[in-house]
Amino acid sequence: MNLGIVRYIISWVLKFEAAFLLLPSLTGFIYLEWKDALVYLGVALLCFLVGFTLGIKKPKHRELYTREGFASVALSWTIMSLFGALPFVLTGDIPNYVDALFETISGFTTTGASILNDVEALSRANLFWRSFTHWIGGMGVFVFIMAILPLMGGSSFNLMKAESPGPSVDKLVPKIKDSAKILYSIYIGITLLMIVILLLCGMPLFDTLTTTFGTVGTGGFGIMNDSLTGYSSTIQIVVTVFMILSGINYTVYFCLLLRNFKQAFIIEEVRWYLGIILASVSIITINISSLYGNMATSLKHAFFQVGSIITTTGFATADFDSWPELSKNILVLLMFIGACSGSTGGGIKVSRIVILFKAIHKELHMMIHPRMVKKIRMDGRAIAHETLRSTNVFISVYLVILLLSTLLISVDNFGFTTNFTSVVATLNNIGPGLDMVGPTCNFSIFSPFSKCVLMFDMLAGRLELFPMLILFLPACWKKH
Amino acid sequence: MNLGIVRYIISWVLKFEAAFLLLPSLTGFIYLEWKDALVYLGVALLCFLVGFTLGIKKPKHRELYTREGFASVALSWTIMSLFGALPFVLTGDIPNYVDALFETISGFTTTGASILNDVEALSRANLFWRSFTHWIGGMGVFVFIMAILPLMGGSSFNLMKAESPGPSVDKLVPKIKDSAKILYSIYIGITLLMIVILLLCGMPLFDTLTTTFGTVGTGGFGIMNDSLTGYSSTIQIVVTVFMILSGINYTVYFCLLLRNFKQAFIIEEVRWYLGIILASVSIITINISSLYGNMATSLKHAFFQVGSIITTTGFATADFDSWPELSKNILVLLMFIGACSGSTGGGIKVSRIVILFKAIHKELHMMIHPRMVKKIRMDGRAIAHETLRSTNVFISVYLVILLLSTLLISVDNFGFTTNFTSVVATLNNIGPGLDMVGPTCNFSIFSPFSKCVLMFDMLAGRLELFPMLILFLPACWKKH
Repeated sequence: MNLGIVRYIISWVLKFEAAFLLLPSLTGFIYLEWKDALVYLGVALLCFLVGFTLGIKKPKHRELYTREGFASVALSWTIMSLFGALPFVLTGDIPNYVDALFETISGFTTTGASILNDVEALSRANLFWRSFTHWIGGMGVFVFIMAILPLMGGSSFNLMKAESPGPSVDKLVPKIKDSAKILYSIYIGITLLMIVILLLCGMPLFDTLTTTFGTVGTGGFGIMNDSLTGYSSTIQIVVTVFMILSGINYTVYFCLLLRNFKQAFIIEEVRWYLGIILASVSIITINISSLYGNMATSLKHAFFQVGSIITTTGFATADFDSWPELSKNILVLLMFIGACSGSTGGGIKVSRIVILFKAIHKELHMMIHPRMVKKIRMDGRAIAHETLRSTNVFISVYLVILLLSTLLISVDNFGFTTNFTSVVATLNNIGPGLDMVGPTCNFSIFSPFSKCVLMFDMLAGRLELFPMLILFLPACWKKH
Repeated sequence: MNLGIVRYIISWVLKFEAAFLLLPSLTGFIYLEWKDALVYLGVALLCFLVGFTLGIKKPKHRELYTREGFASVALSWTIMSLFGALPFVLTGDIPNYVDALFETISGFTTTGASILNDVEALSRANLFWRSFTHWIGGMGVFVFIMAILPLMGGSSFNLMKAESPGPSVDKLVPKIKDSAKILYSIYIGITLLMIVILLLCGMPLFDTLTTTFGTVGTGGFGIMNDSLTGYSSTIQIVVTVFMILSGINYTVYFCLLLRNFKQAFIIEEVRWYLGIILASVSIITINISSLYGNMATSLKHAFFQVGSIITTTGFATADFDSWPELSKNILVLLMFIGACSGSTGGGIKVSRIVILFKAIHKELHMMIHPRMVKKIRMDGRAIAHETLRSTNVFISVYLVILLLSTLLISVDNFGFTTNFTSVVATLNNIGPGLDMVGPTCNFSIFSPFSKCVLMFDMLAGRLELFPMLILFLPACWKKH
């Protein structure tokens, strides 16, 4: 591997993280939390210094192949989390470093699984950083860097490939830098729109900012112990809508901006995504109606929770762990499906699920008509053999990680439902699971070992498995 | 579809079932259970008459393509179960037909999941039939028929393909009929050997026969309410060894018979199978040692339960639902893995798991060396692209059925562990699951609807998914 280029890329990520860390520092100054403000300033300085030192020596070769791209992204996200966890420890709000790291990885990967029993005890600076990591991780730190810097020229596509969710990367426009710029512009646009609307609904500014970061990044960290239960119905509905909008393939917004409405509404994945939401909300509304007495409340809760889970956000307005098994199981199924590719959401992704179903359908038809030659098509175009193969391997790897992780964390001797849904909720970057990790509980129950397993799952889930796995191959570290 | 040939094949299956039904009838006469004896005789006669009627008109075309092969096998197994369930109802031992059908499908598919609260209350004739269905289903009814009749000539390969477990069918010898004969000879040989050994261990004849059927067919129906807990340690160890032997690819025995020892020990799948057993037994023995006080007892229980689960038999000598979570999770993982292809066991099959891991390994290496051309090899030979693709599709279909079934049976509102492991235990043809379907419990808790879902899962699992699915495609029923 060309370690020089990897080091160089990490140096830039750290410099950007230093800049990001100035925001919670500013928050600390505003809310007169002097210690916290200085801690964030100090860590920002540290990040910058380490980044600067790593970046002094320019790499000899600037080519970035798949393995360098994947390794850079996997290592960057890990190192970014290692530094990002420091303020929690140094401010004393999360004294245990493993816990702080869990919280930070959960933030960057937009999982939203917490180890905190009392979120409200955190300082404003920490609360801000915690939610802001969602926003950074949502669209991706490399997409951000590429929108600003002409980092690697054309070969930076391999960085984007590792960080962007979905079976194939959609370059909106031929130049990767322009694509990154467009994506971040839309991302910032949605963020600003949501901030304005929430403020108009009467939400306080601090709550608005953190909730918006958690929503558009599809993260799920709240600043209240009861997540969003305490806010007005209007606010809950606004959040619901923005969660669902954030789970949509950003290509749709790009097409809308170009006034290419026909193209926007033709995207199969989005139609499936909305269809699944509609079906799930309908069934759950009926299933839980006896619990809430009236249809309107049931519909509101069902709509919110379905939106929260399928987009892998993880906010809660109700304790869905106490819902009937059918509703709970629909939510678990939605955890697997996840949002659209090219969105900020996690999970297997709707497009992969659609491709798999089409592949199954094709395979069955080939048993009936063995000589039939039929290509699988999405949005009218034939799917590349490469995409199909990588989707299949993705599912296999996914299954292996899912089952092995469940096995590994079972050493803590919690029940099967707790273990299984913990892994499902972290690997798909949701947040809450069922039973002892349900929406009213948290992940503090686990041993440091299990927390490490779940941290790996969160990173693997966010980076779509392969970048994290490639680090474990000895061949990855050999020189060219 | 060529319905004529399908009808003709079903007619033969029914005639053979009529012959099989004479055995429990004989058992009834021996144990002076006159009513039961006559019921079985009556149902045998009915089977023969229906089979005879269906077979009067010879099919015009005798070609058997994949779809006819798959549809014939799926329909035959279903119809065979529909008739096989009748004696349970008519003798009054299982008055509810849905329950009787569940029990019969569980028998033929060698699952061993029961809806009976009190097995010991059954008549001898019923107990015999219940266990004998395991023996018929273990090696497969079509393999049996083909060993005797020159049913379809060369194209009967499509029947074998639908019924034989594993990603690709090993024809031991060029002629399908000879392969079938060899397989059944080995099967009968192992059966006889086990009967002799169990008799020598002092087991009563009736117990010996039923236990042997349940073991070599990897079924798991016992004739005692506490499964095999009440028998001596010697008998339990004999059963353990024969369960593990029955989960081995029969090609090994064929090679041994030909004195081709090198070939027998080279088979990768078998080495993995034994390695997985060894590793699982070691970990579980240590994990449960505090429960049983001494290593020897722990080892015996671990060995028995690992053998019982990985071969998908499902006998129990201990309530493993009360074991620590780690041990339980290892058992759940083994449920997924299953036995070797070409054995009588179920599950995903060790060879598919090995192929998947090799495919994952290859994919990761291709990210590091994109221009590398490397074939996946098993037993020194390159795996056909076809096998790899069908393995991938198998895993996708498997996952879809697993999750959808769990969702469907959640309408009964039992816990997630119960629902999930019920589906895992039926889809992989194991028998017991965890929690409310643990080894000391049974499947009587479920509603008729959920029982139907689980019956489908058992058939789909035994016939390796596709034959059952193909029936749901309208295109399957169209004429050529």
